[in-house]
Amino acid sequence: MSCKTVLASKVSASFRDQIKKDIKERDIHPKLVGFLANEDPAAMKYAEWTAKTCAETGVDFELRKVSKLELEEKITEANEDASVNGIMVYYPVFGGKQDLYLQSCVSELKDVEGLCHKFVHNVYHNIRYMDKEETMKCIIPCTPLAIVKILEFIGAYNPVIPYGNRLYGRTIAVINRSEIVGRPLAAMLANDGAKVYSVDINGIQLFTRGTGIHLKAHKVEDTDATLEQVIPQCDVVITGVPTPKYKLSTSLLKDGVIAINFSSFANFEDDVKTRASIFVPSVGKVTVAMLERNLLRLYDYQNNLTEKNKQ
Amino acid sequence: MSCKTVLASKVSASFRDQIKKDIKERDIHPKLVGFLANEDPAAMKYAEWTAKTCAETGVDFELRKVSKLELEEKITEANEDASVNGIMVYYPVFGGKQDLYLQSCVSELKDVEGLCHKFVHNVYHNIRYMDKEETMKCIIPCTPLAIVKILEFIGAYNPVIPYGNRLYGRTIAVINRSEIVGRPLAAMLANDGAKVYSVDINGIQLFTRGTGIHLKAHKVEDTDATLEQVIPQCDVVITGVPTPKYKLSTSLLKDGVIAINFSSFANFEDDVKTRASIFVPSVGKVTVAMLERNLLRLYDYQNNLTEKNKQ
Repeated sequence: MSCKTVLASKVSASFRDQIKKDIKERDIHPKLVGFLANEDPAAMKYAEWTAKTCAETGVDFELRKVSKLELEEKITEANEDASVNGIMVYYPVFGGKQDLYLQSCVSELKDVEGLCHKFVHNVYHNIRYMDKEETMKCIIPCTPLAIVKILEFIGAYNPVIPYGNRLYGRTIAVINRSEIVGRPLAAMLANDGAKVYSVDINGIQLFTRGTGIHLKAHKVEDTDATLEQVIPQCDVVITGVPTPKYKLSTSLLKDGVIAINFSSFANFEDDVKTRASIFVPSVGKVTVAMLERNLLRLYDYQNNLTEKNKQ
Repeated sequence: MSCKTVLASKVSASFRDQIKKDIKERDIHPKLVGFLANEDPAAMKYAEWTAKTCAETGVDFELRKVSKLELEEKITEANEDASVNGIMVYYPVFGGKQDLYLQSCVSELKDVEGLCHKFVHNVYHNIRYMDKEETMKCIIPCTPLAIVKILEFIGAYNPVIPYGNRLYGRTIAVINRSEIVGRPLAAMLANDGAKVYSVDINGIQLFTRGTGIHLKAHKVEDTDATLEQVIPQCDVVITGVPTPKYKLSTSLLKDGVIAINFSSFANFEDDVKTRASIFVPSVGKVTVAMLERNLLRLYDYQNNLTEKNKQ
């Protein structure tokens, strides 16, 4: 079989090495606080990974277990505590709209997950800097960012094309349109030039920057297309369906497809490697590396070390 | 029967007269844009009310029908259009978390509904001004504000008690804990000193400022209480269950209770007046008056007419 399986640990290794080196050479001690307010075993596992990775790279990670009802107050305290450089929350907490409210309660300067309204808004509008002077790059939501980094690693981005358009010519499906991962991811890939089919149970939307990528940022259109029509066209298929029952039929995949799964369940069938050129079974370790990367960036912003000041 | 039915039109009259007088005397033409991106008949009805009331009071109301997918862009255009003083959106649009995202896309200075993150956050934290100098009062979400104004009108607020604590001693149930109405309303009533039971299908929470209202803002606790235990204790019962099937049993109500319904369906039984001292069957007209009130406030902020500058 000619399919190459790429593990998240392989993709994350160079990021982690760089972060470790940076922290050591600069002799800094960035502190990340993770709030756990649920009993979700997936969140606990993710917290354990975060703790382990942070310990290895020199980040001071502290897990704070709190009740749902005291979480907002604890976030506010951490926002105001100068010894805390980054804040993350293991979602879901309440599970509905109240979680989106909580995401925006984290201070912009400490939001390592990139989930507050400003950062998400900037992703949709292809705004890449926090400030008008363009000295502070925006924080990008971690999981979508991790998937972009994986796509770069495995060659889906074409470095010959100018920066910002490097997915031009690519057709990508993202099966998941959550506010935390799927929708921002579809927007980011379209902003980078791809034609993106965003799939969820309510239907399929098309995210593009238009013919000849003539738009500055993507637009979204509803389509009547079915999964059966769309998937065979796609160079890259990215799945994130949060149930063990969902399996995308291998028979729909284009021969030589790049298949990436970010769900904690296996969304591709066991025989996916008979069709795929590259298969990435999970992304979690890259997500944690991106968390740390965002933390270092925010550490610098908090200490006024913007790109301008560093020069 | 000794129950007094208080209609929203009666409560809104004095507000509308004041707004009309203000607009006429100052010879201003504040413009409110309403975005309709759904086919919900309740939203359409609300839009018609808004148009009618605005025409009567001198507000220039424009209804813009747009598709769901172009809504965000249209909001951004209105944010940047100096001729627009206020923006409102008829929810639901997408129905889930994406609607909360949209709420924060409306500029703070044009958010007549008071639904962007900053205003909602300030409601929860009992922060009453937008600025540190305390020259600009916060915009309060319209429907919760309308219910507060109704409670003042019908004497549930005690003006003998200092401002900010005027519900001290009152026990209130709010049956609905949505992010748009029920949760902020429970917080506002608790911030004003009441003991508030916030009820939804997931359970009953208690919002209070603690014994002797010793806290600056409310705290929230989970309870194991049932509706049967809670409702008979309440001086005021406020319902907002969005289904015609829901009926709160009159037999649970304390004799002499104040009963307020903000659902577009009748949540109280037909015989509610056999127990209630005051019954308010709907609140919509007061909500529209509050929209206009918020619009005038934002008009002033946009024109630098803060309380300080007016003096």
